Amino acid sequence: MFLAEVTGTVWATKKVDNLANLRFLVVRPGKLHKKADDEYVIVADVLGAGPGEQVICAYGHAARRAICPENPSSLSIEAAVIGIVDKLDITETSTES
Amino acid sequence: MFLAEVTGTVWATKKVDNLANLRFLVVRPGKLHKKADDEYVIVADVLGAGPGEQVICAYGHAARRAICPENPSSLSIEAAVIGIVDKLDITETSTES
Amino acid sequence: MFLAEVTGTVWATKKVDNLANLRFLVVRPGKLHKKADDEYVIVADVLGAGPGEQVICAYGHAARRAICPENPSSLSIEAAVIGIVDKLDITETSTES
Amino acid sequence: MFLAEVTGTVWATKKVDNLANLRFLVVRPGKLHKKADDEYVIVADVLGAGPGEQVICAYGHAARRAICPENPSSLSIEAAVIGIVDKLDITETSTES
Amino acid sequence: MFLAEVTGTVWATKKVDNLANLRFLVVRPGKLHKKADDEYVIVADVLGAGPGEQVICAYGHAARRAICPENPSSLSIEAAVIGIVDKLDITETSTES
Repeated sequence: MFLAEVTGTVWATKKVDNLANLRFLVVRPGKLHKKADDEYVIVADVLGAGPGEQVICAYGHAARRAICPENPSSLSIEAAVIGIVDKLDITETSTES
Repeated sequence: MFLAEVTGTVWATKKVDNLANLRFLVVRPGKLHKKADDEYVIVADVLGAGPGEQVICAYGHAARRAICPENPSSLSIEAAVIGIVDKLDITETSTES
Repeated sequence: MFLAEVTGTVWATKKVDNLANLRFLVVRPGKLHKKADDEYVIVADVLGAGPGEQVICAYGHAARRAICPENPSSLSIEAAVIGIVDKLDITETSTES
Repeated sequence: MFLAEVTGTVWATKKVDNLANLRFLVVRPGKLHKKADDEYVIVADVLGAGPGEQVICAYGHAARRAICPENPSSLSIEAAVIGIVDKLDITETSTES
Repeated sequence: MFLAEVTGTVWATKKVDNLANLRFLVVRPGKLHKKADDEYVIVADVLGAGPGEQVICAYGHAARRAICPENPSSLSIEAAVIGIVDKLDITETSTES
């Protein structure tokens, strides 16, 4: 999975049928020690994450299971928010220096 | 999923049987804040996306489900357009500066 | 999926049993506007693609379905040629400049 | 799979239901001959790996099978620790020079 | 799939149950025309590949099928050796210059 910051929303009226009523966020994967770079990923979200929040995202089956637990394979998505970050505890170990 | 701009079409007469009648687009994944770079992805499309349009694309099972909802695993594709973008709303948060 | 140029063949006598009689090509994924770079991907092929030809390749289930439609999950491959390119039509749109 | 060093923990109270009680680590994939770079991956862990330990991580079904062997597809994760490294034996062969 | 050179072995006593008795190699994916770079991948192996040998590796279901043909989904691995390279025949085509 990856950490990312929610930076926007994307709307698509014309889309695959199984995606009706789904919310799509634009998130920027983070690298923690640097400014987040300029790559974006589109993720589905049912947790209500908002701009500026840090989220944990997953790809593939994991994403479909997060959005539609009762029938994951019915969805045409491959990325989703699976959690909203409360706290991140990074330990800098000696092997870094 | 990723955002991309439709930049072309690719034709292949000699192809795997389960791909007959499928339309393949050449799309260029975007990075939003930069000029799109020079990498391309080939995606199947049933939504009718045209050159210059921004699309949301997905990989894997999600792509097959978008193209052939009744029997996704019958297809030899692993990328597809899942939506055509109407509007993109990016919020620049304070963590960027 | 990705576009690539067929640049060679690789032989392996000692291999997983389910790969007997399969043909493995070395292909170089293209970026269209640049000289192709020096990264290579190994793909299975049943379409008879030859050196210098442009091919469309797919990963994962899509690749296994291309090589063995009747029993895709029996194969230990995750990349394959799914089509040989006849024509590529790239439209340069105004967002590039 | 990839080798990584455990560098932290991430907490998310608001998360997908099937992730209750799971432990999420922040790991830094290694490149062995360089200082590890600044990219991070979030992985689930049931082996009890701690900060500074080297771990082997896997993506996708492999990760879900590691965390929930009896029902892997019930989980919304796509990366996990599959082993804690005891010893790493790298042979520098002549093709490197 | 990708070509790689076997460069080492990794041992993990504490690991997921379904990985008991599996052999894990450290391989370095090659780029053919350059010195191999410093990134490593961990792969399972049942073909007996040794240091310095060139191997073809695959990810995901393909890897599990290579290691445990009778029950691939029981394994927590996502990369494996699928063949040991005998000969590599690269054709330099005119599009390179």
